This record gives sequence, C-alpha cells and structure tokens, in this order.
Amino acid sequence: MVFIGIDVGGTGIHVGVTNTDGLILYREEIPTLVGRPYEEIIRDMGHCALRVLKEAGCREEDVAAIGVGIPGIADQRTGMVIFCPNMAWKDVPLRDELRKYINQPVFISNDATVAGFAESVCGVSAGCHSSVFLTLGTGVGGGIVIEGRPWSGFHGIGSEIGHIFMDIDGEPCTCGNDGCLERYCSATAVIRMGREAMTDYPESLIGRLCRGDVSKLNAKMVFDAAREGDDAAMKVFHRYVDNLSKAINTIIAFLDPEMIVLGGGLSKAGSFLLDAIRKQVPRYLLYKGMPFARIEIAKLGAEAGIIGAAMLGKKPV
Amino acid sequence: MVFIGIDVGGTGIHVGVTNTDGLILYREEIPTLVGRPYEEIIRDMGHCALRVLKEAGCREEDVAAIGVGIPGIADQRTGMVIFCPNMAWKDVPLRDELRKYINQPVFISNDATVAGFAESVCGVSAGCHSSVFLTLGTGVGGGIVIEGRPWSGFHGIGSEIGHIFMDIDGEPCTCGNDGCLERYCSATAVIRMGREAMTDYPESLIGRLCRGDVSKLNAKMVFDAAREGDDAAMKVFHRYVDNLSKAINTIIAFLDPEMIVLGGGLSKAGSFLLDAIRKQVPRYLLYKGMPFARIEIAKLGAEAGIIGAAMLGKKPV
Repeated sequence: MVFIGIDVGGTGIHVGVTNTDGLILYREEIPTLVGRPYEEIIRDMGHCALRVLKEAGCREEDVAAIGVGIPGIADQRTGMVIFCPNMAWKDVPLRDELRKYINQPVFISNDATVAGFAESVCGVSAGCHSSVFLTLGTGVGGGIVIEGRPWSGFHGIGSEIGHIFMDIDGEPCTCGNDGCLERYCSATAVIRMGREAMTDYPESLIGRLCRGDVSKLNAKMVFDAAREGDDAAMKVFHRYVDNLSKAINTIIAFLDPEMIVLGGGLSKAGSFLLDAIRKQVPRYLLYKGMPFARIEIAKLGAEAGIIGAAMLGKKPV
Repeated sequence: MVFIGIDVGGTGIHVGVTNTDGLILYREEIPTLVGRPYEEIIRDMGHCALRVLKEAGCREEDVAAIGVGIPGIADQRTGMVIFCPNMAWKDVPLRDELRKYINQPVFISNDATVAGFAESVCGVSAGCHSSVFLTLGTGVGGGIVIEGRPWSGFHGIGSEIGHIFMDIDGEPCTCGNDGCLERYCSATAVIRMGREAMTDYPESLIGRLCRGDVSKLNAKMVFDAAREGDDAAMKVFHRYVDNLSKAINTIIAFLDPEMIVLGGGLSKAGSFLLDAIRKQVPRYLLYKGMPFARIEIAKLGAEAGIIGAAMLGKKPV
C-alpha cells in the first residue's frame, strides 16, 4: 500500500509516492504555469501522479490515498479549494478533478499544516503528543498537530499563526489588518529592519553584502552580517530573536505543545538562530522554572510537503 | 455514581456533588481563610465534601471521582498544585491530602479551564467539537476544550490566553511581561480606560456614577454609562470591544474552535457586549466570508466551577 503526496506551489508542483512510513519511493517536479485553467493544472498533477506511481513500480490499486498540500485553504468535506491566492484559485473542485485520473480518496490541507504534519510523522517532532510548526519565510505559516493528527480547526481556517495580532495598531499587513505576527517574525521583517539599519549605519556590513542596493537585500545577508559580528546586523538579529521569542511564548501560553518546530527559509540559519531563541524564550515564560516546549529546527526540508500530504490519508494507528 | 466538584477561590471554596450529567445534587460554600497551613484548608475541603455527599443521600463508595478547580496550575501526574498565587500555594500535595478524607481518584485543573469545560458539558457549548472560553474579569483566563476534553497543554501551562502577547512593548502586566492580552481585554483595562476618560471628559456620566471618586470606579459603571449613550463611556466601550474583537480573531486564526464563550464579570453585560462584539469581529477575519466560531455568553455562572471540576473525572464516552 502506497500514498501519493502532492505539494502545490505557485512555481512548481512536487509529486511523490511514499510507503506507509512516509518514505518517498519516487518523486518528480513539474512547473505550475499559473494562469492556465485549473483543469489543466490538475490534469498535469494527475498525469504526473500516474507517472511517479509507475516509476515506483506500483499500480493504481496500490494507492491508499492521495494528499494535496496547497498554499491556501480547502473544505475537507467537499474537496473544494476555497481560496488559494498564489494560484489565483477560488472555489476549485480539486478533489473531483483529481479523481478523474486516480480514483482514490483525496485529502487536501494547507501547506504549512502539511509540512508540520510531516515532521510529526517522520521528522523532528515524530512521536510528539503535540507540536506547532512555524514556516519563517516571506510570511509566517503555522501547522498544528494534536495527538498525531493535523489540526486546521473546526471550520478549516485555523493554524494561521502568522496572522494573530501581535501589536495593536502595528505594522500594516498584506491581509488588511495591522500588527500581525508575521510583520515581526518573517524574512520580510528581517529585510525591513535590515534596510532601516542600512540607513542608520551606512558603514554596516549589511550594505556591503548587498552592494549598497537595498532592493537586493535578503534576510540571509542580514543574518550573515550578524554572524560576522557586524553591530548594525547584530541589532537587527537581536530584535528579530526577541520578536520570535515573544511569538513562541504566545504559542506556549495558548496551546503549550510538546514541541515547537522552526521551518522555512530563516530556519536555515540553524544553531545560530536556534541557540539565540532558546536563550531568549525563557525570559518571557509565564511560569518560570516549569518545563515548556522543546524548540527545534525542522529536518525534512523541501520533502516535507510531499511526505505530509501523502500521510494525510493514513489512518491514525 | 456521583462526582464531587470543588471550586477553590481566594475567598470561598464551593463544594458540590453532581450526577453523571453534571447536575448539582447538593452544594455548600465554606470560607477559604487564606494564610492557614494548606493541610487545614484541604481538611476543610475534605470534611465539606463528606457533608455534601451525606446531604445528597450518597455514600463515599458512590463517588466516582473528585475534581478540583484552582486559580493556578497543577501537575496532573503527581496531583501537586505547582503554583497558586491567590492561595500563596507552591508545591502543595493537594491530591494526597484530599485522599485522606475521601479515597477516590482526584483530578486538578485550572479554574478557567474547568469553567470552560463545564460549559462544554452542560452549558452553552455543550456538544461542540471545540471551544475556547474566556473569563473577562480582573484578568483574563482561558479554557480550551478539544473534542470534549479540557486542554491544558502538554506541560499543563497552556490556555493562559490572558498572557499571550497582544502589543509589543505595550502596557506592563502583573506577570512581568509587557503588552499581555489581559491588559486590553480585562475589567482592569475598562477601568484604566474609564479613568483616562474621566480626566479627559470631566462632565462624563462615568464621573457621576462613581461620584467623582476614581478609586470607586468599576467596569460596570463604564458599561452602564455607555449604555446610557454617554460619549466618553461609548468611546471606552468601543475601544474595549475593538480590543476584544482582535483577541477573538487571534483565537480564530490560531485554533479556529467551533465556539468562543465569554464568561466572567464583564460578560454580565450580556447582549449589549455580545452584539457589539459580533458586529466587530468579522472586520478582522483573515478569510472573510468563511464560516467562523460562534460567539456566545457563558450560561452556567457561578456553578460552572463545581460542575466543571466534578466532570474532570468523568471518562469520555
């Protein structure tokens, strides 16, 4: 028995076939080519799924379920994608379309939820009672796993941790609200603070790394400059660490999971970020001295999308 | 088979015996008399439990379990109260002490969690898949119920919704952090804003209701003045409603429960508050137009503490 996992992004679609433990047997990537009718994109997914299945030496009847991770939200009951801004999808019958190619049960969930679920199946949070996964990228995505199952809430609109209020009347967010958590904890926030630092400290290493061109500045440059001990970059890094530590304390005070997992682009900073976070988080704990969530870096990387999607259809043991 | 529920407060301790549906058969209140050795206070609880049991016509062997709600946190594994500031308790072996009087299983949980659980057993959120309960009082307490079971997190330090960060570098909180949610959503916040309004608008009805004595001002006076249409009080009320609506949106974006229940002193404002909240919450929704949590006022009132505590020991069906 095998599972098909499809990780849908605005640029590429990753399709893989896994065994019951989430091990990828074969995978392929196809371009999304956003802008085409959804029927065409989903047809490509279906054909690709059949190809990877064949390459893995499996037949259609070996497939227990198909899972799809999307950068948006879906209605699990109807199999409709309700909203998926990167794909310009609204009310797309993903399940029905996909079953034209492989007639097996289809499960759809949010990409951050799927990545967090993958970590809890065979990644860093495997075996945890509960975990919260954060993707620290252009925005901040959240994935909640409770007692081994992904949690998207009763109406499927939960785990959007990037959009909880962190600062009343704070920075305007792309969602229309002000002061969302992702304005303070994303790579975008690092870049914003890095640009301010370039203005305040023109001699900073940040400016040299992007050759004085603020439009070329990325979060890695700011972190790299901080790692080199550059004062301006260190200030930005410490501010970022403080923001993320507060966000982690919000997760602890709210849900108190067994583990909090950091993924996404910024998490590639590894122990440089993790050590700083682990040092700063206890400062804001409500119950000081009590055990609290272990904080770890995600370990499945880009494969988390396929694995987590594939495992959506696996029945809990 | 009956259950004993004990609701521990800094002033009084409520002890009741319930049937398996959470219906209170008999109840009694005794003074806490904080400051005495914990053994004495727990002895009073035990004796009172035996009395209410007798008055309800039950025997000790009819008791399936004893539940205790405390204004603090406990370790469910050891039965120790770890921290309970109002009682000046730290590492108190509540379970072992209580079993000296009634030798049945003892369950201990936070009072807001217990009150939220009671609502989900036989109150406004009965039958809900998931709910988040907020006590809007001097502080803000939180109770999370997931699939019929109270959720205090993996380490027992969760559901402290009053202490999630809502405003970076905002109002100092009693917990030592700045900008906690309860600084904006508690009765204390209403009083603080009411006092500011009295200074800015000396002619306001708020000032007349407390006879010009800011130390006598309470949240009910501010809400009453707003209900009368007083401009200054209306401003405070609208600011409060906006804050609470943002907090509710944080709960929706994070956990997306089926229902959010408002309890505690401020919830006595009833539909005056509820109607305003229901109107303001949709403004901040991330996915506009999608179904989201029903918002309701708690209905069990002061009895929620006994009922929820009693039901802690009831096995899920």
